[in-house]
Amino acid sequence: MIHYDIALSFEHCVRFTHQVFHPDNTTLSEVLGSQSSSGKVLLCLDSGLSEGQPALLGAIPAWFQERPGLQLVSEPLVLPGGEQAKNDWSLVERLWMQIHRHGLCRHSYLLAVGGGALLDLAGFAAATAHRGIRHVRLPSTTLSQADGGVGVKNGVNRFGRKNWVGVFQVPFAVINDLSLLQSLPPRSCRSGLVEAVKVALIRDAAFFDQIESMAGDLAALRPEAVEQVVRRSAEWHTRHIATGGDPFELGSARPLDFGHWSAHKLEPVTGFRLLHGEAVAVGMAIDVLYSALAGLLPESTALRILELLERLGFRLYDPALEESSQGRLVVLDGLDEFREHLGGALTITLLEDIGRAREVHTMDENLILQSLARLKQRDIEREAARQPVPRDEAGHPA
Amino acid sequence: MIHYDIALSFEHCVRFTHQVFHPDNTTLSEVLGSQSSSGKVLLCLDSGLSEGQPALLGAIPAWFQERPGLQLVSEPLVLPGGEQAKNDWSLVERLWMQIHRHGLCRHSYLLAVGGGALLDLAGFAAATAHRGIRHVRLPSTTLSQADGGVGVKNGVNRFGRKNWVGVFQVPFAVINDLSLLQSLPPRSCRSGLVEAVKVALIRDAAFFDQIESMAGDLAALRPEAVEQVVRRSAEWHTRHIATGGDPFELGSARPLDFGHWSAHKLEPVTGFRLLHGEAVAVGMAIDVLYSALAGLLPESTALRILELLERLGFRLYDPALEESSQGRLVVLDGLDEFREHLGGALTITLLEDIGRAREVHTMDENLILQSLARLKQRDIEREAARQPVPRDEAGHPA
Repeated sequence: MIHYDIALSFEHCVRFTHQVFHPDNTTLSEVLGSQSSSGKVLLCLDSGLSEGQPALLGAIPAWFQERPGLQLVSEPLVLPGGEQAKNDWSLVERLWMQIHRHGLCRHSYLLAVGGGALLDLAGFAAATAHRGIRHVRLPSTTLSQADGGVGVKNGVNRFGRKNWVGVFQVPFAVINDLSLLQSLPPRSCRSGLVEAVKVALIRDAAFFDQIESMAGDLAALRPEAVEQVVRRSAEWHTRHIATGGDPFELGSARPLDFGHWSAHKLEPVTGFRLLHGEAVAVGMAIDVLYSALAGLLPESTALRILELLERLGFRLYDPALEESSQGRLVVLDGLDEFREHLGGALTITLLEDIGRAREVHTMDENLILQSLARLKQRDIEREAARQPVPRDEAGHPA
Repeated sequence: MIHYDIALSFEHCVRFTHQVFHPDNTTLSEVLGSQSSSGKVLLCLDSGLSEGQPALLGAIPAWFQERPGLQLVSEPLVLPGGEQAKNDWSLVERLWMQIHRHGLCRHSYLLAVGGGALLDLAGFAAATAHRGIRHVRLPSTTLSQADGGVGVKNGVNRFGRKNWVGVFQVPFAVINDLSLLQSLPPRSCRSGLVEAVKVALIRDAAFFDQIESMAGDLAALRPEAVEQVVRRSAEWHTRHIATGGDPFELGSARPLDFGHWSAHKLEPVTGFRLLHGEAVAVGMAIDVLYSALAGLLPESTALRILELLERLGFRLYDPALEESSQGRLVVLDGLDEFREHLGGALTITLLEDIGRAREVHTMDENLILQSLARLKQRDIEREAARQPVPRDEAGHPA
């Protein structure tokens, strides 16, 4: 038998900046100028971002114009973002075609500027063209800057399953331009905060305290507060990948997928009406209550977590949780699909305390149903509290 | 800036056996039984192999039947092999569909039994389903057992370019079953010997001597001789990947692609009439003569190499080398495409001696044309020598 260990080492860098395409900003040129590059750059831009910050369409070519060592091979390629884009295989084909047409090689760059979905899609096209051209990510949402955009996964959806087709690849570089967040619709901006809460819950109680103390500013989406939380979340996410011992997820544990087994199912079940972060908020609420019902987590701590999520503006229940097929709640299929997609033994992350995760390998359906029932009840009460109480003519509650 | 090094380590094992699907053979069960496997196995089989060894279609399910820990999820999926199959994207889709349909996860196996093209295609489908399910390769040709099948590349063709779409992935395991070679058509069997000559030329003068001393037996495709050469070639190939310092080819050098810049062009130009190994024989002959014309390699050594290739049964010229477009030989485009596919600076491997490679970064078109002219002349002379000389009635050459 021939036997070798093949050792690989990849630098994983996440840079933070503001106004990356300002004429004087050199963050991107430091990245692209390095290591025997061909200088060729194909750039794709999320349509949501180009609508929110239309000046980018001019600023990007102008930035490159001033850097003669770099060649932007075409105008920025505006592509749809959002989870739905990952259902459209023709976008992968379109990117491959552009890479081919402009003669990009393995030492050229595909830059993707946009939300997590566009980065996932472009990352897959880059990873598979010529067996991998250099992929530089500029995530433009709180979600992608705090979480997926700084990670090593890419993918598109297939067979109604999220990220069914994809690979692991360390991006050539990640640049978190915090100014890109400024044009985000409030709902998207809020959505990404969930992943910060997630990483705090599984890793860092002090970070949870910090988020709690900033909850008012975060709920109001004040930029300084959002930036602070995005940075710390990105740091944790990156650290976990690099030091967690299984960057390409060959084992069974996925702590960063806390709350995701049901979230990944809720997204397609709602026809992607829920944003990823909104679905994860619901998914985490389910697993937080489950942790309490299973006797792992004090009830009071569970309620503290739910309250923080609500204070940040998340709704922790969705009617789609009640959809059933053949007498069984559809969301429960998420457990099987989670196991199948990740592989290995089913491994679900629960909580023992804020900042302390615990892995389990089975889930009790009854306890899941109880968690769902409690979330529904809580939702009804909150909705009722929000409605003006109907009163009779005398002003008494009717 | 957040900065980490992400370190990955993959075991790369190539096992040798005979009759891998014999009821008593445990090579495959040792591989599949390991490391928290789901036990599920989807197996695809090269149609060329299933025609050559029809008993396999029964032997494979029977072998699995006796291993209750392993579940062959369907009958062996017979797929076309050969380079043309890599032009057919629908085969990737078909494999993805089967992987999905049978609920394979990242701890399940896609086994591919066949020639290099099928392994490349199946390897790509496996590497991209669920971001990588376990891929076990059983190469069934001298070419794939000696070279590509034991490597870390996969891919399919796109835009008329070989392996334009693909990724690097270390296969979960490789099993070289030397019995699979027995049904190979002689032309295919011979074709693979070229990669053994290649690795000898760039790395191992003693191996070249050995091939030379066995040339008669190899030309006659005697199994013991072929097996010996395949083993040593596989060892070299694997060693280069694991210890060469750049397993995923992020730099510019590709010594294992000696002779391949023109070969990769010749294949599509001939409509894949030439087998890969046949094209590489021509490509190596070009670069061997070029090395001599450039003053790197003694002329006598170059001739010794050409003679060995001819003794093994290779023709070192093909009329497709004369095809031109807009006044320029089409084969010369192979240099640009080689650079573009590999990325970085153009890096061509030439020879200074048998067993000693030398990298250059430009090629002189005039010297290439001279090499081609000499190969054509040599081909004409060999053809003439092979023809019975036409004679006049008195018996004198006409």
